[in-house]
Amino acid sequence: MSTAKASVLEQFKAPLQLRELPLPKVEPGAALVRTIMAGICGTDVHLWKGELPISLPVIMGHETVGKIVELGSGLDKDWTGEPLQVGDRVTWNSATSCGHCYYCAEKKQPTRCAQRRAYGIGYRSDQAPHFLGGYAEFHYLRPRTSIFKLPDDLPTESVIGAGCALITAIHGVERTGINWQDNVVVQGAGPVGIAALAVAKSAGAGKVIVIGGPKHRLQMAKRFGADHTIDLDEVPTAAERIAAVRALTGGYGADAVLECVGMPTAITEGMEMCRDGGKYLVLGHYCDAGSISFNPHIITRKQLQVFGSWSSEPRHLKAAIEFLRRTQKEFPFADMVTHRFPLEKANEALATTAQWQSAKTVLVPA
Amino acid sequence: MSTAKASVLEQFKAPLQLRELPLPKVEPGAALVRTIMAGICGTDVHLWKGELPISLPVIMGHETVGKIVELGSGLDKDWTGEPLQVGDRVTWNSATSCGHCYYCAEKKQPTRCAQRRAYGIGYRSDQAPHFLGGYAEFHYLRPRTSIFKLPDDLPTESVIGAGCALITAIHGVERTGINWQDNVVVQGAGPVGIAALAVAKSAGAGKVIVIGGPKHRLQMAKRFGADHTIDLDEVPTAAERIAAVRALTGGYGADAVLECVGMPTAITEGMEMCRDGGKYLVLGHYCDAGSISFNPHIITRKQLQVFGSWSSEPRHLKAAIEFLRRTQKEFPFADMVTHRFPLEKANEALATTAQWQSAKTVLVPA
Amino acid sequence: MSTAKASVLEQFKAPLQLRELPLPKVEPGAALVRTIMAGICGTDVHLWKGELPISLPVIMGHETVGKIVELGSGLDKDWTGEPLQVGDRVTWNSATSCGHCYYCAEKKQPTRCAQRRAYGIGYRSDQAPHFLGGYAEFHYLRPRTSIFKLPDDLPTESVIGAGCALITAIHGVERTGINWQDNVVVQGAGPVGIAALAVAKSAGAGKVIVIGGPKHRLQMAKRFGADHTIDLDEVPTAAERIAAVRALTGGYGADAVLECVGMPTAITEGMEMCRDGGKYLVLGHYCDAGSISFNPHIITRKQLQVFGSWSSEPRHLKAAIEFLRRTQKEFPFADMVTHRFPLEKANEALATTAQWQSAKTVLVPA
Amino acid sequence: MSTAKASVLEQFKAPLQLRELPLPKVEPGAALVRTIMAGICGTDVHLWKGELPISLPVIMGHETVGKIVELGSGLDKDWTGEPLQVGDRVTWNSATSCGHCYYCAEKKQPTRCAQRRAYGIGYRSDQAPHFLGGYAEFHYLRPRTSIFKLPDDLPTESVIGAGCALITAIHGVERTGINWQDNVVVQGAGPVGIAALAVAKSAGAGKVIVIGGPKHRLQMAKRFGADHTIDLDEVPTAAERIAAVRALTGGYGADAVLECVGMPTAITEGMEMCRDGGKYLVLGHYCDAGSISFNPHIITRKQLQVFGSWSSEPRHLKAAIEFLRRTQKEFPFADMVTHRFPLEKANEALATTAQWQSAKTVLVPA
Repeated sequence: MSTAKASVLEQFKAPLQLRELPLPKVEPGAALVRTIMAGICGTDVHLWKGELPISLPVIMGHETVGKIVELGSGLDKDWTGEPLQVGDRVTWNSATSCGHCYYCAEKKQPTRCAQRRAYGIGYRSDQAPHFLGGYAEFHYLRPRTSIFKLPDDLPTESVIGAGCALITAIHGVERTGINWQDNVVVQGAGPVGIAALAVAKSAGAGKVIVIGGPKHRLQMAKRFGADHTIDLDEVPTAAERIAAVRALTGGYGADAVLECVGMPTAITEGMEMCRDGGKYLVLGHYCDAGSISFNPHIITRKQLQVFGSWSSEPRHLKAAIEFLRRTQKEFPFADMVTHRFPLEKANEALATTAQWQSAKTVLVPA
Repeated sequence: MSTAKASVLEQFKAPLQLRELPLPKVEPGAALVRTIMAGICGTDVHLWKGELPISLPVIMGHETVGKIVELGSGLDKDWTGEPLQVGDRVTWNSATSCGHCYYCAEKKQPTRCAQRRAYGIGYRSDQAPHFLGGYAEFHYLRPRTSIFKLPDDLPTESVIGAGCALITAIHGVERTGINWQDNVVVQGAGPVGIAALAVAKSAGAGKVIVIGGPKHRLQMAKRFGADHTIDLDEVPTAAERIAAVRALTGGYGADAVLECVGMPTAITEGMEMCRDGGKYLVLGHYCDAGSISFNPHIITRKQLQVFGSWSSEPRHLKAAIEFLRRTQKEFPFADMVTHRFPLEKANEALATTAQWQSAKTVLVPA
Repeated sequence: MSTAKASVLEQFKAPLQLRELPLPKVEPGAALVRTIMAGICGTDVHLWKGELPISLPVIMGHETVGKIVELGSGLDKDWTGEPLQVGDRVTWNSATSCGHCYYCAEKKQPTRCAQRRAYGIGYRSDQAPHFLGGYAEFHYLRPRTSIFKLPDDLPTESVIGAGCALITAIHGVERTGINWQDNVVVQGAGPVGIAALAVAKSAGAGKVIVIGGPKHRLQMAKRFGADHTIDLDEVPTAAERIAAVRALTGGYGADAVLECVGMPTAITEGMEMCRDGGKYLVLGHYCDAGSISFNPHIITRKQLQVFGSWSSEPRHLKAAIEFLRRTQKEFPFADMVTHRFPLEKANEALATTAQWQSAKTVLVPA
Repeated sequence: MSTAKASVLEQFKAPLQLRELPLPKVEPGAALVRTIMAGICGTDVHLWKGELPISLPVIMGHETVGKIVELGSGLDKDWTGEPLQVGDRVTWNSATSCGHCYYCAEKKQPTRCAQRRAYGIGYRSDQAPHFLGGYAEFHYLRPRTSIFKLPDDLPTESVIGAGCALITAIHGVERTGINWQDNVVVQGAGPVGIAALAVAKSAGAGKVIVIGGPKHRLQMAKRFGADHTIDLDEVPTAAERIAAVRALTGGYGADAVLECVGMPTAITEGMEMCRDGGKYLVLGHYCDAGSISFNPHIITRKQLQVFGSWSSEPRHLKAAIEFLRRTQKEFPFADMVTHRFPLEKANEALATTAQWQSAKTVLVPA
């Protein structure tokens, strides 16, 4: 076998094309993996629309589980030191930091390392090794990729159901610092919102209120332990939602509010939901969704703490895997995978994500 | 003597009126003080314009040093435990927190205690004890006021030259957390900017860049140890100023940017001056100065930390007094007092502050 | 009714005496409460032995739930602002800080306030109001006591089963700062150890290993979610236990080790169980249990962080009550109450605690 | 030239031997440097005595400034990104972390990376490239060494006068977290103590008290800004010194105490000097100096925070260089260099350090 199939984004807003591409030679430190399952992330919809500055053609997919087909020389352990072998089921971080630059070593902000390029986003598929995204039969793992062997008692669905949303949420909640029994509001009930709910709950939050929709997502939030949900369809104004949060938090507002929406207007609404001295996490703004009218007086007057968080580090993925394994009953991420498609139907798959029909849509190439 | 003079704000945007008011009886735990010097704060200009929701008439002045004339029964120690006597020179916090409420005891945000009312702002002068602001011959200190005896080797000018700007800056910098040798930008060269510069420098900052004007303020910033100043008149666009800061910080931006301006547009400019993972303090927005167009994407992408800070606590004033005493040569706050007026000329005094002619204007009632 | 019964410690190491004492008049701000249940804490055994410097006679008991019989004028709300009425079931903090001193207001370490005196420990029962401990039919709550109305769906057994151990653990874990998915070791399986396990688990810990005995306590630890237990009887040497912890933590040691034992030798053993850069909490050393041979080189070499924590604040009790209410299934503190005695059998009750026969022994005076 | 001289430790407690060793070929990424000045650290005395587990023969010297003689291919920038050229004056970190392991990437404790081996300590000189310590005419810098080009306005004496003591202190104080205007005690007036004083002062400390001797060291402490010094010869008992510190800190004790002594008994004394809730840094215990009798009750009762800190990271050296450059007048580290010797007199040089005759002894090989 010298070629394999990939679903390629060749033109923004146009259907992905199924292409046959040459399989790469595996260099030292690299690996070739057969794709078991690839998640479709909301970011992929933004990529498809051309809302991020990327260079086409691209094989999208930055949330992937695969089986090792070939290991390059010198690659015999995963990121945690576990031995790696052909046949192992693995996942990996979509981007790799250098470990030595200003952001990595001096400022300890490795997610802002200039050397990072993400699988499924930042690599052109018309250049070898071609297979650098999840929407394909195979995935090439470049040298220094942070690879993680998956434990046998952790289903692939859990990993992909959690997707990059979970590690994003882990990093964001870490930067925010939930205190034990804090009242928390999660703005948004999509994958990032559900993940933030799970992380906040397991990080010590007391009452967690999830605001979002549609109904099937809020039901999922309930299954993940949301104490209260506020349905955007039923409580349609920001003022009412702010009042609802205050009523649930002794009149003061929440200790921490986690924005997992990506719409700029959520910011002003969310800050009003914070108690004075509270915390606000701007997590959902990976894409530039435009500007809002904003009054900075609220930050001074309420002496807020506002945090941003970008992507995640390998240590977050390590913790995520262990967390998923340990808490499958409490936080049923595998059940997030509500829609499955073969590689050939990648366009239909993308559409279910774009239209918020699914909790999580996945591609199953084999 | 049963009455004394005060300069009273009776109508917004109208001249203050010199009034003779009855001196109060001193209740247990309270004190009566003869005003030695009262600072005029930029906030007083906002109050005079009616930009804050206060109830008139008011004796303004929330930065005051006085000499104790009478001590109510039971008041024999200052906030630090030092013995208090008639004749002692003292200063005090303009507002008092209860120590026991949700914000004081549970959330440890005492500056957001609902019981706080500030001398010079929140008390009507047409009700006893009348003398609850600095623009007067006497000042009444209500029970539980946090009073501090001033050391003999600390001039009154140092205390008033620092004014509420210093304790505001101390609190703000504390919340921000300057790391040792951080590069810091201070936006604004008024009293709060100069104070933030002094606090940042003494809190471990490396290079400090002050942005502001007019020239006499930037010269003052130089005297307070600014490594670089950027003159708004010479570098008139935000883009140029951002570029200048980047050029001075290895191309990355500053570790921390402290907003001490109060103009909303400073926010967007200042966040661009932060390195990724950097810190931004919104300190100057005590008044609601309106809204700006703001894109929250920057907070996520640069994974910023943004902090607000409101007013200050007694412990900040305690530290300020010791700091002023110890660092008079390094940080010459006494030299900030550039304009002095008698009580009768309070309107002229207010005008010098409104027009940025002075570093600091003071009233000397006696 | 003008008198009521109390079990009084009149002489160290001698049986408690059942005494009839005059009920106090309720002063403004105070309350009289009928004791529903009083916990016996391990500290009571130390008190009885005379190991703490207290002045006799004392009514012991600093973990108490009661029903309000009389409210002094002005006392109409509990610490959280909930209305209080005769007949309400309440609990309270055993000690009260002033809110204004060096430790309360300047250093924000209110548990070190010099004004604190604890019910059941620091008050003589031969002086009015006499009833200042839990081993009695009534309990007097002095003005400014931090009182908490209990929610109807929270059993008294949960509150007393958790006892002061839970709030002690909450404070200790807060000071230590468990990071999400940290591996944690709890040294000790008594009430403080079980509580630390519950708090650590709910604060985001990943794997938690409990070391202790006897077997019934480790079984309780399992019910509270311990991932692993190490039985002191089965693994009798420190070296073996250290090796066991390392084997369970990838060879590195735990991220955090929580000492809940009170025996000084646990310290050296526990520090060896920490990974480099890890955290160690010295929580169990309320009493002076003597000195050990200790080599401080380990703190430098492993760059440890070591924390102490003393008592707790009202905000911890507030959080504890909400936590107990919410997590009754997950953390069955009510089941900790394994032994109940009437007031008349206080000596038998104390003996079960002294001999580690019970998880938690309580007095039920009515 | 194909050989060069080095002073070699061949046998513990025996004189260093001057040897002629072959100069190495410079591999890609490496550099060869001519030694300008090499500091003698107190640790070298411990090494010489055989108190650390090292393998002989060793060229000691882990604090070195040199001039680049040859650059291996691919090495064209220093750690900060500055261009490197033959002839540049440079210094470097004595040890290098991998950037990717459990301690580097997961736990962010790079000084505990298992791959670290220190120049002047961890390399045998009988194997190529031989020149891996400062006591020699040349120094080989292995690939991935963190090299720093020195600014022209920073004298070599400043860098070596500060030595590894400064970066050790920077790391230690960073981990401790001095709050603005904290009262600080420094135990020890040797190089680490003086450096800790400078770092604490510049990091925001208020009053700093240095305890140590002999007199010439305390005079140096005064020059570095110590507010008070306590002479061990004049205040010979721990109890008296504790009382002296309390008297200087309002009766409470210091907010932070920094141990820079290396004698275990300093620990118990120093913890008594902390206020409740204060911080204690165990910085001086690089070597195992044995055990003491220690009562852990003090950590619980005073709810202390105790920190250890091991070695330092490249970012600390970067900050140190900028700090030294900026503060030469305030903190005259160049004046610490009180004794200079040629390479041939390395044994005499070592003796001055061992006998505390010098502030800092250096070798000047050229």
